[in-house]
Amino acid sequence: MSKVDPASTASVPVKKVDGEGIAAANDIVAVEEPLAIRLSWPAQGDIGRLARDIAVTMRTPGRDEELALGFLFTEGVLHDFAEVAAISRPDTDSGANIVHVELRTEPKTDLTRLERNFYMSSSCGVCGKASLEAIRTHAQFDLRSDDMRLHADTLARLPEQLLAGQATFAGTGSVHAAALFNRGGLCSDVYEDVGRHNAVDKLVGDLFREGRLPLRGAGLFVSGRASFELVQKARMAGCPMLAAVGAPSSLAIDLAWEADMTLLGFVRGGRFNIYAGPARIL
Amino acid sequence: MSKVDPASTASVPVKKVDGEGIAAANDIVAVEEPLAIRLSWPAQGDIGRLARDIAVTMRTPGRDEELALGFLFTEGVLHDFAEVAAISRPDTDSGANIVHVELRTEPKTDLTRLERNFYMSSSCGVCGKASLEAIRTHAQFDLRSDDMRLHADTLARLPEQLLAGQATFAGTGSVHAAALFNRGGLCSDVYEDVGRHNAVDKLVGDLFREGRLPLRGAGLFVSGRASFELVQKARMAGCPMLAAVGAPSSLAIDLAWEADMTLLGFVRGGRFNIYAGPARIL
Repeated sequence: MSKVDPASTASVPVKKVDGEGIAAANDIVAVEEPLAIRLSWPAQGDIGRLARDIAVTMRTPGRDEELALGFLFTEGVLHDFAEVAAISRPDTDSGANIVHVELRTEPKTDLTRLERNFYMSSSCGVCGKASLEAIRTHAQFDLRSDDMRLHADTLARLPEQLLAGQATFAGTGSVHAAALFNRGGLCSDVYEDVGRHNAVDKLVGDLFREGRLPLRGAGLFVSGRASFELVQKARMAGCPMLAAVGAPSSLAIDLAWEADMTLLGFVRGGRFNIYAGPARIL
Repeated sequence: MSKVDPASTASVPVKKVDGEGIAAANDIVAVEEPLAIRLSWPAQGDIGRLARDIAVTMRTPGRDEELALGFLFTEGVLHDFAEVAAISRPDTDSGANIVHVELRTEPKTDLTRLERNFYMSSSCGVCGKASLEAIRTHAQFDLRSDDMRLHADTLARLPEQLLAGQATFAGTGSVHAAALFNRGGLCSDVYEDVGRHNAVDKLVGDLFREGRLPLRGAGLFVSGRASFELVQKARMAGCPMLAAVGAPSSLAIDLAWEADMTLLGFVRGGRFNIYAGPARIL
């Protein structure tokens, strides 16, 4: 496997069984490998840098730097790409599975917050309401003023457009996808990963690096269900609309209403359900 | 919401849009709420107990104690149910979202290992191979001697049997499920959750509490894809077979071969693929 650009798919031998019998074949599967997200910053007194691995996620290789940036931004560690001095890959055997984000100054965020429970604080209790409040505290963009409007017809075409862009899914049938859409339909690359949250982090990280956040006038389309975590990431990116092929959870709906985000579920087969923020749908 | 037995589904107002128009309706969605897993043990010198929240997971309420036990067991913190003195729910506002597992003695596992990266050690590098080795170190059961054999016909019937047992899915169309099967087909309750890993933890935790591990002569059937994490959990439970409705990842296949586990994917429509351990399929 190449160290710089590891493959996102692999060919494996398989035995296919159906009512007729058994046949040997080759199958394409999505690659899953750990990725460590390493953060470093200058130590006080000009004595070098302090470094810390703040997360390890199982991901499909490809767009690793975007994944790291998207994770750090949607978890509230990074706020502006100008905070990043450099992004590097260590020159070691494990280097292909490490992204090192070098900061210009010590992070302002309490990193211990990330250790066990993103966005949860023991002081405010463990409940959905506390989760919503924690995100309100960390989100820097306001969605209320976003006057994006979309025709229902545009939404009906998204599943077909997403599928057409899913290169890895086409081979494996087994990865999640995320992409942007606007009035004209799908309007970005399709970002894929074995982890639903990773696909969204790759997309958001790419936009963050390009200075394209907040994401006004556009929506985020995801291949699976809409969990709290995905609405959180859309909310952090300043995205006024999240559309999912699958169903939303209760807390995803609560967060969408709280943030004035439009949340759509079961977007497939020419239909969809509006769970929050119906005013943006024409 | 009841504190002792919070509902796993909620009714929400929704606007349904199709080619014909828009209609107001009510929809049933899966509830998603945080759950903190709290561990405590006697402090040295008989001066009370030390407590620590070691994980917060977003889960669908129900079978919370099983979820906590399954998580602690599959992550290598618990090895035997006799280590548990009591399981309690704090009598506070957040109590419905906290499971407190009271240990008889200080845990032998290094809990800091759980903070950012389950099963990863910075000393052995960040790669798939290191992940496999870490699990070999922690797994207490050997699958090689398990002579479970299963007819292909039995597997073909599993999807229908799983669907019949998915009470929450039937209402919401949006939760993952896990259940056991043996030569006779599905042979346990169906455990459901918005999180795939949580559904498996609930099942494994229930078996762990009942002293039914290792899980010899039976398989684990899951509704989604087979990730590394799910194979890891089956491996820790001593389960010789994992069958998934969806596709496996590359690292899931590697771990199954390494552990001598039979791994089946795309189990649906009367077909399936054997990705590892074909000798157990007749």
